Amino acid sequence: MIQRLSTAFIRTLREDPADAEVASHRLLVRACYIRRAAPGVYTWLPLGLRTLRKIEAVVRQEMDAMGAQEVHFPALLPAEPYQATGRWEDYGPTLFKLRDRKEADYLLAPTHEEMFTLLVKDLCSSYKDLPLSVYQIQTKYRDEARPRAGIIRGREFVMKDSYSFDLDEAGLEASYQAHRAAYQRIFTRLGLDYVIVSAVSGAMGGSRSEEFLHPSPIGEDTFVRSDGGYAANAEAVTTTAPGPVDASGVGPARVVDTPDTPTIESLVDLFNKSYPRSDGRAWSAADTLKNVVVALTHPHGERELLVVGVPGDRDVDLKRLEASLAPAEVDMATDADFEAHPELVRGYIGPAAIGPNSPARRVERREDGTEVLTGSVRYLVDPRVVAGSAWVTGADTDRRHVMDLVMGRDFTADGVIEAAEVREGDPAPDGSGPLHLARGIEIGHIFALGRKYADALGLRVLDENGRARVVTMGSYGIGVSRVMAALAEANHDEAGLAWPIQVAPYHLQVLATGKEETVFDTAQALAQALDEAGFEILYDDRRRVSAGVKFKDSELLGVPYTLVVGRDLGRQGTVELRDRRSGERVSLPVADAVARVSAVLTAALAQVPGRA
Amino acid sequence: MIQRLSTAFIRTLREDPADAEVASHRLLVRACYIRRAAPGVYTWLPLGLRTLRKIEAVVRQEMDAMGAQEVHFPALLPAEPYQATGRWEDYGPTLFKLRDRKEADYLLAPTHEEMFTLLVKDLCSSYKDLPLSVYQIQTKYRDEARPRAGIIRGREFVMKDSYSFDLDEAGLEASYQAHRAAYQRIFTRLGLDYVIVSAVSGAMGGSRSEEFLHPSPIGEDTFVRSDGGYAANAEAVTTTAPGPVDASGVGPARVVDTPDTPTIESLVDLFNKSYPRSDGRAWSAADTLKNVVVALTHPHGERELLVVGVPGDRDVDLKRLEASLAPAEVDMATDADFEAHPELVRGYIGPAAIGPNSPARRVERREDGTEVLTGSVRYLVDPRVVAGSAWVTGADTDRRHVMDLVMGRDFTADGVIEAAEVREGDPAPDGSGPLHLARGIEIGHIFALGRKYADALGLRVLDENGRARVVTMGSYGIGVSRVMAALAEANHDEAGLAWPIQVAPYHLQVLATGKEETVFDTAQALAQALDEAGFEILYDDRRRVSAGVKFKDSELLGVPYTLVVGRDLGRQGTVELRDRRSGERVSLPVADAVARVSAVLTAALAQVPGRA
Repeated sequence: MIQRLSTAFIRTLREDPADAEVASHRLLVRACYIRRAAPGVYTWLPLGLRTLRKIEAVVRQEMDAMGAQEVHFPALLPAEPYQATGRWEDYGPTLFKLRDRKEADYLLAPTHEEMFTLLVKDLCSSYKDLPLSVYQIQTKYRDEARPRAGIIRGREFVMKDSYSFDLDEAGLEASYQAHRAAYQRIFTRLGLDYVIVSAVSGAMGGSRSEEFLHPSPIGEDTFVRSDGGYAANAEAVTTTAPGPVDASGVGPARVVDTPDTPTIESLVDLFNKSYPRSDGRAWSAADTLKNVVVALTHPHGERELLVVGVPGDRDVDLKRLEASLAPAEVDMATDADFEAHPELVRGYIGPAAIGPNSPARRVERREDGTEVLTGSVRYLVDPRVVAGSAWVTGADTDRRHVMDLVMGRDFTADGVIEAAEVREGDPAPDGSGPLHLARGIEIGHIFALGRKYADALGLRVLDENGRARVVTMGSYGIGVSRVMAALAEANHDEAGLAWPIQVAPYHLQVLATGKEETVFDTAQALAQALDEAGFEILYDDRRRVSAGVKFKDSELLGVPYTLVVGRDLGRQGTVELRDRRSGERVSLPVADAVARVSAVLTAALAQVPGRA
Repeated sequence: MIQRLSTAFIRTLREDPADAEVASHRLLVRACYIRRAAPGVYTWLPLGLRTLRKIEAVVRQEMDAMGAQEVHFPALLPAEPYQATGRWEDYGPTLFKLRDRKEADYLLAPTHEEMFTLLVKDLCSSYKDLPLSVYQIQTKYRDEARPRAGIIRGREFVMKDSYSFDLDEAGLEASYQAHRAAYQRIFTRLGLDYVIVSAVSGAMGGSRSEEFLHPSPIGEDTFVRSDGGYAANAEAVTTTAPGPVDASGVGPARVVDTPDTPTIESLVDLFNKSYPRSDGRAWSAADTLKNVVVALTHPHGERELLVVGVPGDRDVDLKRLEASLAPAEVDMATDADFEAHPELVRGYIGPAAIGPNSPARRVERREDGTEVLTGSVRYLVDPRVVAGSAWVTGADTDRRHVMDLVMGRDFTADGVIEAAEVREGDPAPDGSGPLHLARGIEIGHIFALGRKYADALGLRVLDENGRARVVTMGSYGIGVSRVMAALAEANHDEAGLAWPIQVAPYHLQVLATGKEETVFDTAQALAQALDEAGFEILYDDRRRVSAGVKFKDSELLGVPYTLVVGRDLGRQGTVELRDRRSGERVSLPVADAVARVSAVLTAALAQVPGRA
């Protein structure tokens, strides 16, 4: 069926939407693929829906081909299963919760581990029912604190989620690898670059996970790679800590005046000028210990201050910090926090006032027997703060710092935390060389969950010996709507979108310019013939729209090929085929146009990586 | 791709689920098409999803063919547009409401008139953009007070909703008729019987509407038809009231003792015995006026008692009553209600104590100038209670009734209401003869909305003279998941489902029985060949399952044809083709089986009504 632009529910915008920061968001809105309905909640318009469905079809084919079976769960779910696994609380404010008319608790599912576990428990009872992989392509809900970038991080979004069920580790490993391979095929078929990196599992739980990232400067995720083959999300990178240091030669800690040192740099300068080291080595930012105060919000809503100590040459990476502290959310401490804690002297915070070093620290025994630390905020340090290492750090009084403060001798911490930024050139944890940093969009995530959900919800099957065994699970997601945004990021230029043919809403746009009836008659006939040849045709048949506007719209919409029927038709009997991506233009005699264009489209479709 | 039962995510149940009252619910659960996730909320299992998708495909094709364009709206919507039209309140507790982490109000959409209106307002500005029809197939949410019958009345369900936008009445009429015709084609293609009846518009608003009902004894809707062509939902039937009566010959109202008259029947008996009419006509139930107390819950939660007076030979039809009082919900009055209103003497309620007749009735003028009736509950009567009609009714004291109580002379009412049941043989309102009653499942509803939503949300376009004009709209729904239930109701027997081939999850089930390898090899080869011929094949390849169980499962699942490969293969080289619906069995030489089965399936598919 030919879609005519004169009647299509498509209205392009000349101006960028005010809230759009990234190209995919800007162009998908301008080209009328999507419209915002609420923050992080989008409506799919006809063009967007067509492209989304094509992506879904590829995902579905590959999931079916690997033997996964499709089901479809509700989005509206009862609270009980999520309460049983703890995620009702762990997800915190990210979970959309509601009550029905009988005051029963419900949620809008952010992901469906619990329901799949219960369904398999309902239907399966024997090892003979396994292995099993089940999937759905469905709408998910997460009340993100910061929805952004259009459909890259929405609050309602389309996800393919699948779940594997196996009797043992070897089975889980096979199911995990089968999904991993299916994901590779899916992204290859979509023509979307990806890297697979180690990741942290977060609120999902589970023993290990990997992310599929589409490398993109606008990606929210930082990932690292070494030449030796290490690849990980920055959140998953573990710091290679030096061994313990012999501090026997370090003199006693000494408090010194440090006026006018608002920055680490000015502090280092002052030390090199006023307190040079006896061995002549210059002080550097790496010799200082920076103590950063953050506020955690735990899932139950409880707020806690925490001080994080990192070498002064590194910033705290809030995403790494948050990953280390999940499921708590992390924000910077506020003025009110500092007022409530006068022992935290801003700019001069040192270990003496915090954590186990604080004179105010008490261990309190609760009625239920557990012990709680009170009287001072917790103090966690970077893995580089090893026993024996000596630091320049705050002296807990205004305009004074302390030097030669030795870890283990002069202060301790409540624990170690991965919070410092990972930097270009840092060593890979596996010794495979220095790390290179890049950014990416998370398009898939695969989790070896293990038995967390099956344990919590009692999913057992009888093994060959008739013994009940807890099933081991995997969970695998593809952000289908986000994949569309990633494809738009990877396939556009200043003028608009430029889709790969396998996901373009149409294969060809026929564009009629001018006012002559013969132009429109010819364009119509060509569109008709190419439609009948099985191609998907968008036909710009608008009568009172200038050629300039039509060309601009055509470039904005991003259909891979445009067949222009205009003044050359009358002058020399030709039409022009334009390739949106290469910019190439070919003039074709109108009599040959159907055959020539068919050949070009057929060749383009044949080049698309298909089912192996 | 052949689906093997040995690895399929299908587990049939021998027992009916405890909560299943109707066949479709019972069989769809037992045959593993759906599973309940919460009250009125269902999961689609692989078989159910396949059938649902086939129904969706027919709906989509016909909507596309009539020129409607597909979009997809969020289910999670901001409250504001629904507040602007009043539906945020009017929908009452049927609306699932929630708040996000910023305390903003959201809802799960029960239907999308507001959002479509706003989208068209966003994209269209000229009469040249009209007419326009836009649709989606999407998940809807309604917190039904009484979810029932599986997917017939769920709280999360799949709906096709479309909306038409026109400049004037003639345009709306054309769009309405185009949808009506598309719906007729859809139900014809699905092989689903339907009748089109006049309906009431309820919370949707609008000037007129029609329902598509599938006649079924388990349907929730009662509808009526006359031989002269009248057809309406019982809720939409208007009572043909007699003209005013000359009451000049009726004596004064007279209170009489009526002990031991717990029922209308016993009351009539007593009157015929103790108070015979002077003209010799016997008293009948139709001479009595029954006053029924009901409690309304208005959308804001306000509760109001109401007395409804109907002739004693008719019951109050709660659905007709509720339709008359929409958007209020209606329940029977409780003991507490009667205690709070001692003037309502149970069993003896008469007009004297209620409505305008009550000595306690006051007209109160509110600060905003409106007048409110207080001091007694409102009293509404059936249209048959015309001026001059005389009634036997309660005397508002225990064990006493009043006779010769004349409407307009001795009592009045606050208004007239359609609340009494419609009965077989009642006259059609249009004079086309007596009414016949039947029950049906509502599968579609089309509304000529007019300008309600466009007015509330400011949807205007410029007409040919450059004047802004409010657009007129229609709204059209098909309950896609409910259609599947209706198809199951219409296509089953005691043994299980028996789908029409166009919606069956598979065209053919190949069933291998016995233990011999040759049986399974042959069955596999036949399944393979028929799969390659383009048919959809379910293959029961289970090894340790008895033939009896396989046949039972096959009948339960309802695939239209089953090809049995079993002992006749070795004995006489034949296989057997069974027609699930007719029960017919044909023995086929195995060598001819692929050709013969292909011919049968091809013929069956060719008989399906298709796109005209």
